[in-house]
Amino acid sequence: MFEVIDAEEAKSIVEENFAATCGEEEMPIESALHRVLARATVSPEDMPPFPRATMDGYAVKAEDTFGASDSFPLVLKLKGEVPMGEMPAQTVSRGETVQVATGSVLPEGADAVIMLEYIENLSSEEIMIYRAVAPGDNIIKKGEDYPANSTVLPSGHVLRAQDLGALAGLGITTVKVYRQPVVAVVSTGDEIVDCREKPGPGQIRDINTTVLSSLITTCGGVPVAMGIVPDKKERLKNSLEEAVERADIVLISGGSSVGARDVTVEAIESCENGKIYFHGIAVRPGKPTIMGQAYKKPVFGLSGNPVSAMTGFLLLVKPLIRRMSGMTRYTTCPREVTAVLQRNLPSTTGREDYYRVYLHEEGERYTAKPVLGPPGLINTMVNAHGLLRIPRNTEGLYQGEEVTVEILD
Amino acid sequence: MFEVIDAEEAKSIVEENFAATCGEEEMPIESALHRVLARATVSPEDMPPFPRATMDGYAVKAEDTFGASDSFPLVLKLKGEVPMGEMPAQTVSRGETVQVATGSVLPEGADAVIMLEYIENLSSEEIMIYRAVAPGDNIIKKGEDYPANSTVLPSGHVLRAQDLGALAGLGITTVKVYRQPVVAVVSTGDEIVDCREKPGPGQIRDINTTVLSSLITTCGGVPVAMGIVPDKKERLKNSLEEAVERADIVLISGGSSVGARDVTVEAIESCENGKIYFHGIAVRPGKPTIMGQAYKKPVFGLSGNPVSAMTGFLLLVKPLIRRMSGMTRYTTCPREVTAVLQRNLPSTTGREDYYRVYLHEEGERYTAKPVLGPPGLINTMVNAHGLLRIPRNTEGLYQGEEVTVEILD
Repeated sequence: MFEVIDAEEAKSIVEENFAATCGEEEMPIESALHRVLARATVSPEDMPPFPRATMDGYAVKAEDTFGASDSFPLVLKLKGEVPMGEMPAQTVSRGETVQVATGSVLPEGADAVIMLEYIENLSSEEIMIYRAVAPGDNIIKKGEDYPANSTVLPSGHVLRAQDLGALAGLGITTVKVYRQPVVAVVSTGDEIVDCREKPGPGQIRDINTTVLSSLITTCGGVPVAMGIVPDKKERLKNSLEEAVERADIVLISGGSSVGARDVTVEAIESCENGKIYFHGIAVRPGKPTIMGQAYKKPVFGLSGNPVSAMTGFLLLVKPLIRRMSGMTRYTTCPREVTAVLQRNLPSTTGREDYYRVYLHEEGERYTAKPVLGPPGLINTMVNAHGLLRIPRNTEGLYQGEEVTVEILD
Repeated sequence: MFEVIDAEEAKSIVEENFAATCGEEEMPIESALHRVLARATVSPEDMPPFPRATMDGYAVKAEDTFGASDSFPLVLKLKGEVPMGEMPAQTVSRGETVQVATGSVLPEGADAVIMLEYIENLSSEEIMIYRAVAPGDNIIKKGEDYPANSTVLPSGHVLRAQDLGALAGLGITTVKVYRQPVVAVVSTGDEIVDCREKPGPGQIRDINTTVLSSLITTCGGVPVAMGIVPDKKERLKNSLEEAVERADIVLISGGSSVGARDVTVEAIESCENGKIYFHGIAVRPGKPTIMGQAYKKPVFGLSGNPVSAMTGFLLLVKPLIRRMSGMTRYTTCPREVTAVLQRNLPSTTGREDYYRVYLHEEGERYTAKPVLGPPGLINTMVNAHGLLRIPRNTEGLYQGEEVTVEILD
């Protein structure tokens, strides 16, 4: 028999023993969306490399415009135009101006742009201005977006569209990111056949390889399906050894019966550096979750029951995949909503309970209705939008309470 | 000159004129994660195909156990065991039982399973039971997860891990999903060079192809980068025609100056079925956004300024991509958080204002601090976690107010 441990303790054990990232790889920025930077990026040069106009208008020395208004327009000497994408041939001295368009290089000597709307063309050599501007108005300074040698993004940053854009602007077209952990999925069970096969009498199709592979992808891991293995220690050990060779994390799903769970435990223990950290967590569903290592790689034995396997995965494997991906700072993006509970939910003290809930949008808020049914039915997950956790020291929740729901997507 | 229209009106115009999805394609479930079902899926058979035990124990007729307790145990005749993955050789009649493991087929005649913990083996032919069970206890009925011919998932459903698992379990290994819209990105500007090139004097690297392509991917579209085109009507028209041929939506970014914007408008209008729906929206940043069509496909002219281009994209293009992907029901998953505003924010009535904000987690809540700076600086987006919208009829927001922030990921 085994001793059941708390969910929090189980999480700590995984965290303490398997903390490292999976190493780095270099890739072009086009492929790096949502990957995690392994090295801080530093700007190699000023961006922009020259001061630019941000409006169509006239580059001026701001002090030349002071006092200009509708009733007291001032006259400036027009020295031509800056062609887009070229360096200005002219400089701006006192009393002078050069026409610019949005994005033009600001000519030397100018420190502001006066908008087109506030001038009048007197001739090809003179304009009248009706508005004063302050130094810096309607321009971006050289290096104002990123000065040379400044940190653009810290290591651990999850790369978003705008981050990749900043790198592109600086000419940083490849980045060093953390390698995505490869996660092997072994399905066990004498009654299980591949979902593409026709089950014989007494057999059913494998659900968990599909569920777990998809969850791995969603968390940022790379799934490898190892196929289906019967509940025999030697066969499972062989599959486990192959999985450990190919992957950073191994999931063994199945073994819902006590006998089959014992086979999983024995197969893990029989590997080099094989060890069981815990066997059973105080969580429902997900209680029979096994955690160990083989060849120093983390191995999880998840229930064959799809709902329990999902709960065990979300509780223990998802945080590990994110940590091994380097996602330490990915904290400001919860997939959570607040909802009003639609009925009382019982819970047992000393155990975490997870309820599947259906969310309904009512005006500005959500309501959460539990989707009841045994955890062996995947329809209870299919009909749910999210998971509602009842902590171990809570006796239950009441109808009308505000609850936080983790979205299952 | 052009007339500026409201953001809401702009959104309606896009929605009314470009409502259709992009057609369907069939794909294996392994590749269909987060794709949108184009056809409802119906179960071809009962799942499970036979009643199953959900616990290790003994299959019984529940009525045979009624009255059993620790003080009044009852005796049942043991008729052997059901081997996992096979059909039972035995049936269960009154007074009889057959041993089962979690996942076994329930023998005919039985309607419940009594758990291992509540029995004692008397001999190879008799067990004593200490607990009564009700019909249905510890079993899943034939077809209880999905009966044959039931709707498993409606069309329009976004496929998640558990959904794909249910399909796998039913032997549905391919699905019809909506094709992802292909979105072409044309970057214009005489001063722009590809981010892999070294800019000459007066030139800068293209940021928007990278930003927009990544945003398209994030929304579920397929980006196609068309490269950089100078601000010349004929060149832009050629590129636009090529883009329309390859894509479902075309984005032209650049043309920040009035002259360049005019070139964009003219190029769109000169195409077959070319038409401008609007040119300018009452949104800051993002005001100079152009919306039209060429060869009956939607074409957006976004600002060359990366922050304005992002705002225009998120406001108009993102909802269109989602709609064309068939994501009508994808409503229960906002990437939003509630936060407490850290300073007063002014806004002009009659216009929507978008502020970039930095989120800070303080215990259970977030605070939102505006990231100020001109929209020409991409660093203001890089340093922001989300966008805060101030609706057009609001004069501003006060420090301490609760605000909703759309996460930029």
